[in-house]
Amino acid sequence: MSERKIFRTLISLEEANSRLLSFFDPRPIGDEKVKVEESLGRVLSDDVISDIDVPGFDRASMDGYAVIAEDTFGAHEDRPIILEVTGRVEAGEKSNVEVVSGKAVEIATGAPMPKGANSVVMVEYTHEKDESLEIRKSVTPGENVMAAGSDIMVGELVLRKGEKITSREMGVIAALGIETVKVYRKPKVAVISTGNEILKLGEQSQYGKIFDINANSLVGAAMECGCEPFYVGIARDDSNDMIEKIRKALEKAELVLTSGSTSAGVGDRLYRILNDFGEPGVIVHGMSVKPGKPAVVAVVKGIPVFALPGYPTSAMIIFQILVKPLLLRMSGLGEAQPGTTLEAVLATKVFSPGGRREFMPVPLSQVNRASASPTQSQADLEQSRHMQWLMDSSMFP
Amino acid sequence: MSERKIFRTLISLEEANSRLLSFFDPRPIGDEKVKVEESLGRVLSDDVISDIDVPGFDRASMDGYAVIAEDTFGAHEDRPIILEVTGRVEAGEKSNVEVVSGKAVEIATGAPMPKGANSVVMVEYTHEKDESLEIRKSVTPGENVMAAGSDIMVGELVLRKGEKITSREMGVIAALGIETVKVYRKPKVAVISTGNEILKLGEQSQYGKIFDINANSLVGAAMECGCEPFYVGIARDDSNDMIEKIRKALEKAELVLTSGSTSAGVGDRLYRILNDFGEPGVIVHGMSVKPGKPAVVAVVKGIPVFALPGYPTSAMIIFQILVKPLLLRMSGLGEAQPGTTLEAVLATKVFSPGGRREFMPVPLSQVNRASASPTQSQADLEQSRHMQWLMDSSMFP
Repeated sequence: MSERKIFRTLISLEEANSRLLSFFDPRPIGDEKVKVEESLGRVLSDDVISDIDVPGFDRASMDGYAVIAEDTFGAHEDRPIILEVTGRVEAGEKSNVEVVSGKAVEIATGAPMPKGANSVVMVEYTHEKDESLEIRKSVTPGENVMAAGSDIMVGELVLRKGEKITSREMGVIAALGIETVKVYRKPKVAVISTGNEILKLGEQSQYGKIFDINANSLVGAAMECGCEPFYVGIARDDSNDMIEKIRKALEKAELVLTSGSTSAGVGDRLYRILNDFGEPGVIVHGMSVKPGKPAVVAVVKGIPVFALPGYPTSAMIIFQILVKPLLLRMSGLGEAQPGTTLEAVLATKVFSPGGRREFMPVPLSQVNRASASPTQSQADLEQSRHMQWLMDSSMFP
Repeated sequence: MSERKIFRTLISLEEANSRLLSFFDPRPIGDEKVKVEESLGRVLSDDVISDIDVPGFDRASMDGYAVIAEDTFGAHEDRPIILEVTGRVEAGEKSNVEVVSGKAVEIATGAPMPKGANSVVMVEYTHEKDESLEIRKSVTPGENVMAAGSDIMVGELVLRKGEKITSREMGVIAALGIETVKVYRKPKVAVISTGNEILKLGEQSQYGKIFDINANSLVGAAMECGCEPFYVGIARDDSNDMIEKIRKALEKAELVLTSGSTSAGVGDRLYRILNDFGEPGVIVHGMSVKPGKPAVVAVVKGIPVFALPGYPTSAMIIFQILVKPLLLRMSGLGEAQPGTTLEAVLATKVFSPGGRREFMPVPLSQVNRASASPTQSQADLEQSRHMQWLMDSSMFP
């Protein structure tokens, strides 16, 4: 895009979003087959349609005797009806025995109903002696029988494309006998941290340096969005190192996240580097939001790149409002997990800066009505562990 | 336990639970170390206490000039105060430059404050020409500085044992420079299906047989409880096969789930088999609940074994009300994920059987107030995909 129009021009969040969507269409990237038992949490990339009836046959739902219901009419504790037992069917067995009037066949729960029978008398209401069976309670046609296809019918749309797989869906898919299921592939998200002051976890702490918080928060947040993140490493404040790390990220990522190096001086360098990677390059250089104003958005080689601020809370807020909706749509979780908005009472007064939309992490407490406690100090803002809900000042009445 | 007191004696859910807890204490089994980037969703087995200050030094939170605040008092757009610039500090750099009255040091966001300075004037409010710096706005002591330890202090309890790790916790742990974190080990849960009528997924469908729904639902449900399930296979209605599968399960499982073979005839066999495995053996043989009445609970070799009914919904309901709370405590998620109770209006009248506590899957819809639609037919009950909430008839007013 025309460089003059982008460089350090603060735009609204909506405008940033609409530019982004004009250059990048966030949709699932493809699909893959996974075993049903490994499908938990994944998102169906196709409708699941049954090609069988479930159950595939009329099935006894109780232990007892398969009978013709009409034969039992009038049966009573004190006035049992007598039928002749002509055989037995077990679960899983295909039996050729047939029930005709006056006869009964012993049947186990889950066994297929013998031909001719239309109901099952529970064993509790019978007494068998030799081949003679006392029926002490009548049944209606269909009683204690699960009809073929009563659970799922051939051709039935059982699960929809876009549904998230929980243990319930795993059971439903298993009912159809399907071993593998088509799900959206997890988008690959590259995570790069930048800055000379950033230490790798496990390194000796050093004066003037801080540990790499953002890489870990962003890896976790990308996973929470159904993505497969990978950590490229820490790029130093050096153009060559940054270019190399970003190139490495672009080799296999479908979306790239960097954090840090967005403040005035170094930010301009990151802007140039991203712009040089290809068209359209940087499409957003600063937004009128607080925090996270200096965030940079670029699209290079069709891949969106977000340069998030270095402050952990700022990075996570920009992630939440700009990146997360995108990732959820790319992983297919978008429709499965709509965002939640909650109305709460502010615990303290908040003065928002003019001309900037402010986002604030607000821990919620519940008394009679949810109450939100804005954290205004930078120190509190840093404590990303406090960010349970995000308050948007533009939603103030 | 005394066999006579157990065999086919219906007891309440509370009694079943209290017997279970008298023989088995559901608690995390042990812990293991995982890398922070692989810790998402795990539960901390230890408090996390910081052994460093975060940040470890006073840190500039803006690009600008480190100054002595008092030197800037009275500075104004039209009446700037002039200071002399004596150096520059970058992020990640340990500089020996010192700020004395009348002097300023250029500073980058994130850089350690030079000795003597107590605040940062943002670059926007300055104008530098040669070594002469115009200050156009005064600052107060501490302004634009993040004090050492202001985020996290040495010795601070940062995260508590029992907390579930989300991307937020990952960021907090990373802030301390910790590479690996101690989490509870995932309990191993064995899953066995039983019955001659059960087909493995992927097999050709056969008349009289049904696919193994329960194994997949239970594997998924155990994962949702933070466990590591493994599928032992399908045991046929044959004592030797059942004994072998259960023995195999007990070799490495911390909890065993079977489904099927609980109806009157075969159920007695499963009862004997479980009882023969060791003391106390079967402790529950039937509960006054609907569905799931014939469920069997045993404890053998210190390991709880649940013989769930074969009907998928019955199995899942007993899992939810009896097994899930146990697994959540064993995985450590118990405290992190308390159960949710929701009040809703019944969409239809429900007549519950006398003397049995009834649980019913109720899909919820939201109009003005949540409305629950009980599903009463066996066919609907089978459709475990409808079980979003579980209604407990004992909670009726």
